[in-house]
Amino acid sequence: MEASPVYFNSWSQKFRRPFGAVQCGQSVYFSIEVNYKNTLHVMLVAHKDGEPSREQEMFRSSDNPHIYKNKFSTSEPAGLYFYHFRIEFKDDRGVTHTVYYGRAEDDYGGRGFLYNDPSKIRQYQLTGYGFRDPAPDWYCHGVIYHIFVDRFNNGNRNHIIEQPKKNSFIYATEEDDPYYIRDHEGNIVRWDFYGGNLKGVINKLHYLHDLGITVLYLSPIFEASSNHKYNTADFRTIDPMFGDEKTFRKLISRADKLGIHILLDGVFNHVGADSIYFNRFKHYGEGGAFNDKFSPYYDWFSFRHFPDSYDCWWNISDLPAVNKTNERYRKFIYQSEESIVDTWTETGIGGWRLDVADELPDDFIAGIRSAVERHGSAGDKKVLIGEVWEDASNKMAYGKRRHYLEGGMLHGVMNYPFRTMILDLLHGKIDARLAVRLSLTMKSNYPPDAFLANMNNIGTHDTERILTMLSGDLRKLRIAVWLLMTLPGVPCVYYGDEAGVAGGKDPDNRRFFPWGRENRETESFFREAIQARRADANLQAGDYLPFSSGNLFGFIRYGSTAGPTVLVINVTSEEETLVAGHLNDETDSDDLSDVVFSVFNRTVSIKPFDFILAKAVPDKRFGLFNP
Amino acid sequence: MEASPVYFNSWSQKFRRPFGAVQCGQSVYFSIEVNYKNTLHVMLVAHKDGEPSREQEMFRSSDNPHIYKNKFSTSEPAGLYFYHFRIEFKDDRGVTHTVYYGRAEDDYGGRGFLYNDPSKIRQYQLTGYGFRDPAPDWYCHGVIYHIFVDRFNNGNRNHIIEQPKKNSFIYATEEDDPYYIRDHEGNIVRWDFYGGNLKGVINKLHYLHDLGITVLYLSPIFEASSNHKYNTADFRTIDPMFGDEKTFRKLISRADKLGIHILLDGVFNHVGADSIYFNRFKHYGEGGAFNDKFSPYYDWFSFRHFPDSYDCWWNISDLPAVNKTNERYRKFIYQSEESIVDTWTETGIGGWRLDVADELPDDFIAGIRSAVERHGSAGDKKVLIGEVWEDASNKMAYGKRRHYLEGGMLHGVMNYPFRTMILDLLHGKIDARLAVRLSLTMKSNYPPDAFLANMNNIGTHDTERILTMLSGDLRKLRIAVWLLMTLPGVPCVYYGDEAGVAGGKDPDNRRFFPWGRENRETESFFREAIQARRADANLQAGDYLPFSSGNLFGFIRYGSTAGPTVLVINVTSEEETLVAGHLNDETDSDDLSDVVFSVFNRTVSIKPFDFILAKAVPDKRFGLFNP
Repeated sequence: MEASPVYFNSWSQKFRRPFGAVQCGQSVYFSIEVNYKNTLHVMLVAHKDGEPSREQEMFRSSDNPHIYKNKFSTSEPAGLYFYHFRIEFKDDRGVTHTVYYGRAEDDYGGRGFLYNDPSKIRQYQLTGYGFRDPAPDWYCHGVIYHIFVDRFNNGNRNHIIEQPKKNSFIYATEEDDPYYIRDHEGNIVRWDFYGGNLKGVINKLHYLHDLGITVLYLSPIFEASSNHKYNTADFRTIDPMFGDEKTFRKLISRADKLGIHILLDGVFNHVGADSIYFNRFKHYGEGGAFNDKFSPYYDWFSFRHFPDSYDCWWNISDLPAVNKTNERYRKFIYQSEESIVDTWTETGIGGWRLDVADELPDDFIAGIRSAVERHGSAGDKKVLIGEVWEDASNKMAYGKRRHYLEGGMLHGVMNYPFRTMILDLLHGKIDARLAVRLSLTMKSNYPPDAFLANMNNIGTHDTERILTMLSGDLRKLRIAVWLLMTLPGVPCVYYGDEAGVAGGKDPDNRRFFPWGRENRETESFFREAIQARRADANLQAGDYLPFSSGNLFGFIRYGSTAGPTVLVINVTSEEETLVAGHLNDETDSDDLSDVVFSVFNRTVSIKPFDFILAKAVPDKRFGLFNP
Repeated sequence: MEASPVYFNSWSQKFRRPFGAVQCGQSVYFSIEVNYKNTLHVMLVAHKDGEPSREQEMFRSSDNPHIYKNKFSTSEPAGLYFYHFRIEFKDDRGVTHTVYYGRAEDDYGGRGFLYNDPSKIRQYQLTGYGFRDPAPDWYCHGVIYHIFVDRFNNGNRNHIIEQPKKNSFIYATEEDDPYYIRDHEGNIVRWDFYGGNLKGVINKLHYLHDLGITVLYLSPIFEASSNHKYNTADFRTIDPMFGDEKTFRKLISRADKLGIHILLDGVFNHVGADSIYFNRFKHYGEGGAFNDKFSPYYDWFSFRHFPDSYDCWWNISDLPAVNKTNERYRKFIYQSEESIVDTWTETGIGGWRLDVADELPDDFIAGIRSAVERHGSAGDKKVLIGEVWEDASNKMAYGKRRHYLEGGMLHGVMNYPFRTMILDLLHGKIDARLAVRLSLTMKSNYPPDAFLANMNNIGTHDTERILTMLSGDLRKLRIAVWLLMTLPGVPCVYYGDEAGVAGGKDPDNRRFFPWGRENRETESFFREAIQARRADANLQAGDYLPFSSGNLFGFIRYGSTAGPTVLVINVTSEEETLVAGHLNDETDSDDLSDVVFSVFNRTVSIKPFDFILAKAVPDKRFGLFNP
């Protein structure tokens, strides 16, 4: 603090409370320390997203002449605020200066930076959400397993493949390496299938239950020509290679008996060119937008030149984009009792993961959420998660800020930033302190319910496999798995990661599950970490406070009556020692150190690429953020 | 004749007898008509292949002062002779001129051409074979069916594919279009399989028998990574996807019960890089020539730079060429009781088709023939056919003339020139007269036994399908099928052609047999033509004399006691009339017209793309070539 004449820390209770996102209408109390001899004005400069800035005078504290305070009022509607401080002071020669204090140059929150040049200022983010909107308990307390259906298990006798698609290829053996069959221009000319199906998932429910899984997130299951099925052909039909509605209902009821919920992948941004709706290849009769301007589906799409030039997702002509403002499309997807979302939610699924949610209009997502809410009961609420790759709290897409996390839309999003953080830590690309700052930034930017409902991962069907990212180092894998199971949010295991499956980029990350050839060591990492999470309410839904100490990264999860849980990991190849009094806490929390050292002696050593998970004294009460 | 002062016709009994190829040591009687007023010398200029020319004076006939004659003696060893005539005459002013008479400029035999420039002369060919070497009767009188095993029929229950190869692809349905899976450099990266197998062939023996088939020629069946299996991995093992030795023996005995012989495809010129012998990918343990200079297989191959640069067939690195002069390789292939040829011939097969026979040394082929001859009995002789694409009688390969058809080696070769002739006729690219000349050239160049033992085809796994070549025109297809079944040689039906399968170049010509979706009309063409051939000894092994009449092409097949068979086809889109006295016979045969018109009135009309097959009066005797 001595280093800068001005000090502010957006994560500290002393400078900004409450912590993090607030509900619109709530006030935020700001303090800032200004150490100039002759301070003239301290101004809070804030604006609501898209609106002009307003300046608000901060007043000198009666307790401490270097502290300036004021209350900032947020208001409806929900949205982001951005702020910094402007300080005027007079120097010894009587000259007036203006300086600015804003977010640090690396774009993380916490302690900021004193700027002389107003054009350089980076703003702090204050997220104002509309209302608390927690995801259902079964979801928040659960452990998800992500199944890429074609690659998981074939439940047919002799692994026969039913209803294969004409002019597609089947892998000769389930041990084969995935391969895209492309022409010399790189277009996929034949789809490749292993033959995983819903019966196969049913047959493995006991395995998954035994592993500790409580939620299955299935890759898309509706009819489509591809193996991944993100190019929907018919939203009303289960892909015949995967099974039929009867099998799907059986999966739901069998899973339900084991306390397992099913999430579907909702792909509503685009459809397949080879679909009932677009029907480019006339595999679905004579109709469809591509063939007929009078088709009922024609105005779902945006033709630049009929029929061969049309809007499509990422310019992939096989994925014509649907116009999400089209009322007929909205009705079809979610705005009627027979809508797609209603029809499939009614089967008893736990909810949906929305593909490319950041490209869907907010009111489209809200409409889906309303449809989802029509189903289930108080004890069996549905969940809605969105695919977003970045910090979803401030995502812009197509020039517009997205509001899907502010209440009434998404419960949470896929959490790729945490995956990146875990990998960067394990690769030594970031140090422990930066991990603390990165994760606190996430925590402070996301509405609190979303932060705990994010679907965390260390790998998906769109990334390289964790084992490959870690060059096969099982010590690192173990740490990654434990971080996945202990960081805030809901962990999602990518099928096969537990079995030690490696794999580079798509399609190598979509190998078939190695039934009978599983790596029992990696399986035990997952099993133990999942069990630990499921046995500890703190890890499921507790608050989060990270810290570092030299090369050690740690955090406490707290809030349950059982007392805080402490995790400390050593991502280096040397034994490291955690020493009391040396915790680096970016929140200036008073009693973090007490909590951590309530479970250790004054020092504790952690082996290379190892960790310690411990419980703090159960009956001790800590101040922490919200005493 | 009037047009040229010199006349010779290599096909006419008046100018050269006997017709065609002769056994070495036999004499050939030449006559030539020279109409100069003052002829000084007529010389026969002949040389044995590779030897210098010799001149031999022709003597004026006592009967006719314009005819010059002499006898030409052939001698051991077997081989080709080439000849032309040199004529010296004095003109009215007393100046001496030299002219030359040789083969016509289009390289066909028959009537020739008068050359002034000796450097331009084209020579006539006279084939001298070593000894008569007829193929077995069961073969010559048979009808062959060529099965590409992976594409014919899957005999397993539910069409399960047993022992699929790791990292290969299976077509999703048997109706799929064939497709090579290549990388961007064009290399095949995964092999594609439909799953046809030997059980599948067994299950269709009754179908084939009913169609009139008596010989099955199977594409290679020994273990290999590809679907075609021309890249042998292990000569001692049936490819596991196709079945095992037990199944193969069952196929032979079941076929035998129906009077069907089996021919194997012997691929001895090269092996697969992925083989026991070369073992480039170490799929067969640690040994093999690629891995070990001390491998017993090392000196089968010719390494330019060990191990990555080696001789291979057509520079395809996946097909390392074997050094056919290597004694160990010869022993392995045919020179011991446990040799490959002995082992598999002993199972009771009818014989072999030798892949790329024109690239195998003559003594290598002779060695295989000797091995083949060790098996069977007088009534069950084995056949040996070679793959050659051109006129095999004068084929050069690697700078050497091939002698495989002169006795003791091949019985016959695959007859692509007849396929070309049939297609060219049907496409109007050649007229009927050229077809006569082309087929007579073949007849005169080939040893007579080979000419009748050639394996005729109108399409193979290496060509576009006949139906596609004919643009789907079923009238033309019918004619092609009837020509296949009536021209001299043994007809070979490419699997599926009878079912109306179309297909362009490889791999489209290797579609799976459309069981249950056969074209019954095309099937009836084949069925009728096969039955006609099998009911007529002339068509099976009779002599051949073609003729033309305007746009009509025809020929007689004769020699059986039943009297000649006459076929006349109209390959035009107009009705055409065959008129007595207008037959164009390139052999100057005396009684051809009598034979043809012994079955017709003085004229007979033939509809567009139709034909007439008729029998001449049975008891009438004709002079023809060999009265």
